[in-house]
Amino acid sequence: MSIAKKIKSSMSQSSMIRKMFEEGILLKKKYGADHVYDFSLGNPNVEQPKEFKRELIKLAAENIPLKHGYTPNAGYPETRQAISGKISKKTGLKVSADHIVMSCGAGGALNVILKALLDPGDEVIVLKPFFVEYPFYIENYNGVIKYVNTKSDFSLDIEAIGRSINKRTKAIIINSPNNPTGRVYSKKNITELARLLSRKGRALKKPIYLISDEPYAEIVYDGVKVPSLLNAYQNSIIAYSYSKTLSLPGERIGYIAVNPKIHEAGELINALILCTRILGFVHAPALMQRIVARLQNAAVDVKIYRKKRDLLCKGLARAGYKFAKPEGAFYLFVKSPIPDDVEFVKMLLKKNILVVPGSAFGGLGYFRIAYCVDDATIVNAMKGFAEAISETTTY
Amino acid sequence: MSIAKKIKSSMSQSSMIRKMFEEGILLKKKYGADHVYDFSLGNPNVEQPKEFKRELIKLAAENIPLKHGYTPNAGYPETRQAISGKISKKTGLKVSADHIVMSCGAGGALNVILKALLDPGDEVIVLKPFFVEYPFYIENYNGVIKYVNTKSDFSLDIEAIGRSINKRTKAIIINSPNNPTGRVYSKKNITELARLLSRKGRALKKPIYLISDEPYAEIVYDGVKVPSLLNAYQNSIIAYSYSKTLSLPGERIGYIAVNPKIHEAGELINALILCTRILGFVHAPALMQRIVARLQNAAVDVKIYRKKRDLLCKGLARAGYKFAKPEGAFYLFVKSPIPDDVEFVKMLLKKNILVVPGSAFGGLGYFRIAYCVDDATIVNAMKGFAEAISETTTY
Repeated sequence: MSIAKKIKSSMSQSSMIRKMFEEGILLKKKYGADHVYDFSLGNPNVEQPKEFKRELIKLAAENIPLKHGYTPNAGYPETRQAISGKISKKTGLKVSADHIVMSCGAGGALNVILKALLDPGDEVIVLKPFFVEYPFYIENYNGVIKYVNTKSDFSLDIEAIGRSINKRTKAIIINSPNNPTGRVYSKKNITELARLLSRKGRALKKPIYLISDEPYAEIVYDGVKVPSLLNAYQNSIIAYSYSKTLSLPGERIGYIAVNPKIHEAGELINALILCTRILGFVHAPALMQRIVARLQNAAVDVKIYRKKRDLLCKGLARAGYKFAKPEGAFYLFVKSPIPDDVEFVKMLLKKNILVVPGSAFGGLGYFRIAYCVDDATIVNAMKGFAEAISETTTY
Repeated sequence: MSIAKKIKSSMSQSSMIRKMFEEGILLKKKYGADHVYDFSLGNPNVEQPKEFKRELIKLAAENIPLKHGYTPNAGYPETRQAISGKISKKTGLKVSADHIVMSCGAGGALNVILKALLDPGDEVIVLKPFFVEYPFYIENYNGVIKYVNTKSDFSLDIEAIGRSINKRTKAIIINSPNNPTGRVYSKKNITELARLLSRKGRALKKPIYLISDEPYAEIVYDGVKVPSLLNAYQNSIIAYSYSKTLSLPGERIGYIAVNPKIHEAGELINALILCTRILGFVHAPALMQRIVARLQNAAVDVKIYRKKRDLLCKGLARAGYKFAKPEGAFYLFVKSPIPDDVEFVKMLLKKNILVVPGSAFGGLGYFRIAYCVDDATIVNAMKGFAEAISETTTY
């Protein structure tokens, strides 16, 4: 045996999505990319805001000493200052540059947070359906995953979360707007969660951390507001990414924001900085740190995503599919017309439609559509979606 | 207790360098940056090759579909192709794009490699003196560090390495040109190591991996050649970074190159790709991947570093310091005039000179000078270096 046993087993487990992905490549080769409707990946196709390109061109030509040199492990002070200023204004809290640690996207941020917090055997609550990477991230640091179902409308089931908390519980991860459901947790739902965590923390005489994974914070529709987690709960930590806000997932830039009132703030922040270093990130990419400092008020045009969502929802509803209309992000989590979601995904594959089975997210009986694709892909896929559902009988 | 116990203990252990760093900031505030001689950090001050800026400006303006989107976890095929072509040409081996996985610098590469290889309790040999991050990287994946001394000239002590190998040994990390010593291992030394590892591997019926950390591969002097590890040993894996070759440490770009003949190559490569994903790197930064693909033949002007090395070596030798003249990298590992290197570093601090005690690298009785600084800093620090040694009596 050469590679690590755990990695070997992960490789065989994650082979389902991989196979789907490989089938997609084969289909595109066979039929041409235009005749394959690929809704499998959350790779934003919406343009960066125009300010981004302008700043990139400007910055590329600028002469700055040590322009591409190492930055402090926590990131440039100016960038952290710009971000803390924006958060302070939004929340009314006294968030300073010290409370911000720049990260390689939200994926990097979550790994750094979990590394800083978890002792072996510590439990982390993950809500079903979940972003496929959470279990890996927790296991990376010898944590134990505690799955808890959400309600049928994918909102937080406070009682179920309460029942899962015990003396080994270190943290809960939430993700709103949610991947894969598009759900945004209401202010009431978040307040109830905060109360529960405070009460349990007092009883257990230790903080229970609320880790909020927020790459989609800016991608919301119909005037829905994403409640501030920092305002709601003292022991909250935000993992943010510019991947979706600025359509930059390839550039690996985001940050960690720590609640200024969090338990032992100074020590936690130092731990996050150390973990950024020793996990090999060292720090977030320098050029992108400079750019996001200048683009705190820029964002992609969300109307473009809303149009795609509406096109997709209208078409699928007409064909007879059942789903909750997403309030944010760019995913639709659709009930599979037959109980076996993997089977139905294979039926869609025969129509050259690529989606991901819900069971990959712990959401058996559903499938996920990532609608960050051309409008034409949505429109042209509708025939296949309609045919597939009409070929099932048990819906 | 809120943060992880291991991180808490790491934070107290790594406080010595931190204190030095903080003292440096205080000194600079008090005396002005021009009057503080900071040799503590390996942050290259040499300009990027001119091709870099030209390509960055060009690329910033180009319209490419999904230009800043997710790349494959292993990196862009074109970038991997360009790198494998260069390595194939250099080594004569059939290295293909498949054998290359792009990484967030060498730090990212080493973490991905160790995550892919290590089962809990697996031993990794680290040679003293060592780059300070190796122990962290190994412990991140529950590996056990096995320290082995190098010889008095910092070359590989093959017999000592041989004695340290047992059935739990998974890998050895080497770093040539070396940080902190500047040593380049000779072809003979590398061949002996390869023979030893092959022999031990056969006896133990398992591969012993040679992980070669090569960020300084291009920074060598006086016509010294860095022997190819891929040619020397079948089970070799290279962790490379453009940080020093292109003076880009802030942009976090490098790669892993796997020997095409390595034990179970396909499975190992898939493991490296999976680990890049699940550690939260996701992939190396997209823009920098595009740039390095175009800059395979560019490098900083090494003559600039050589001049600094010569200035420093001449000055220190004249003052009576003892050291081996570095053959590569931009570090000088100097014998402390008194046995207690931390104490001597404090004496230098009183002369406003910042260096790192050798004990931080497991090299008791030495101190490290990073000479990637202005020539003026080297020249102006000489007075303080001379005074400090003259104030000691036991040299």
